[in-house]
Amino acid sequence: MFRYPNGKPYEPKEQFVHKKQQTITYSNRGMTLEEDLNETNKYYLESKLAVIHKKPTPVQIVNVDYPRRSAAVIKEAYFKQSSTTDYNGIYRGKYVDFEAKETKNKTSFPLQNFHAHQIDHMRNIVEQGGICFVILSAFNEFYYLEAQNLLTFWNRQETGGRKSITHDELNEHGHKIPLGYQARIDYLKIIDKLYF
Amino acid sequence: MFRYPNGKPYEPKEQFVHKKQQTITYSNRGMTLEEDLNETNKYYLESKLAVIHKKPTPVQIVNVDYPRRSAAVIKEAYFKQSSTTDYNGIYRGKYVDFEAKETKNKTSFPLQNFHAHQIDHMRNIVEQGGICFVILSAFNEFYYLEAQNLLTFWNRQETGGRKSITHDELNEHGHKIPLGYQARIDYLKIIDKLYF
Repeated sequence: MFRYPNGKPYEPKEQFVHKKQQTITYSNRGMTLEEDLNETNKYYLESKLAVIHKKPTPVQIVNVDYPRRSAAVIKEAYFKQSSTTDYNGIYRGKYVDFEAKETKNKTSFPLQNFHAHQIDHMRNIVEQGGICFVILSAFNEFYYLEAQNLLTFWNRQETGGRKSITHDELNEHGHKIPLGYQARIDYLKIIDKLYF
Repeated sequence: MFRYPNGKPYEPKEQFVHKKQQTITYSNRGMTLEEDLNETNKYYLESKLAVIHKKPTPVQIVNVDYPRRSAAVIKEAYFKQSSTTDYNGIYRGKYVDFEAKETKNKTSFPLQNFHAHQIDHMRNIVEQGGICFVILSAFNEFYYLEAQNLLTFWNRQETGGRKSITHDELNEHGHKIPLGYQARIDYLKIIDKLYF
């Protein structure tokens, strides 16, 4: 059982997931990672520490119905692949940009969790001087891995190397994120250490 | 007037507006404000000048159908009010955040184009030291108005003053944005002038 510092057990929750597809589409902790990050960002926002939001899920809207004197109802739409990362915002004047992913693998973090557009985006952000990273939920830890390191692993794959980051590599190059009660996944702590 | 289930009025985005209405809601240039900004941002991205994206339209997904376990079809969803601005990103290492709005009014720019959540967001960004502004399409011009000035006009309204920004006020406090071929609404020029 995975527990927060306050002893509260880490319990997976689900939402928006079609029951039948649930075990295939998402792992149980996927939505929890998002919820934890949303709570963390909410705390950062309310305490004026940082302004970081998750972007809305990109949806291609095909058909909208406007029933009389009522709300617009989207009747047909499709999920689109995002061309950027999910989270961005500002911390201490600096641009912050990250993606959060998880694996239930025991030995390595598969790079297929990322797609090429996201990698391109992260490369662009690094070139512009932004604070760019990924939060990886793996091996019962939350890791902060700088985009520069992810890009190195991605390039290794592109040139015929392994398609994942090993547990050892993540321990060496990543930073374990401290967990808190209000800032559940307190990633600003790592940013402080790396940039300020 | 269409309304969301929570009573908030629905403001159609250009992309969902029927062709016939497009020429009415925007200038005669055949492009919507959103399209012009997307083209501008695409040019900035491709020339490595800045990485600025429009956020996806926020949608509350209610019902998703999985016909063949391959493609998910969203069968029922609703437009949600955004809690942030539509555009953000990074330019020369700095966090950039803005909203774009237009009016067909001849004499003033109505503040009802903004909602309180967006104003709160802009206030937060200003406090964090970000570059925050609005692009206003009005009086056959594109104006760059710093969020600090918008907040002043908003506060005037909150304390019983006028509910719009006059043409004269916009000429005095706003910056006319130069138009280009590739960077159609070349707002980075104004950022250069103000911050670098």
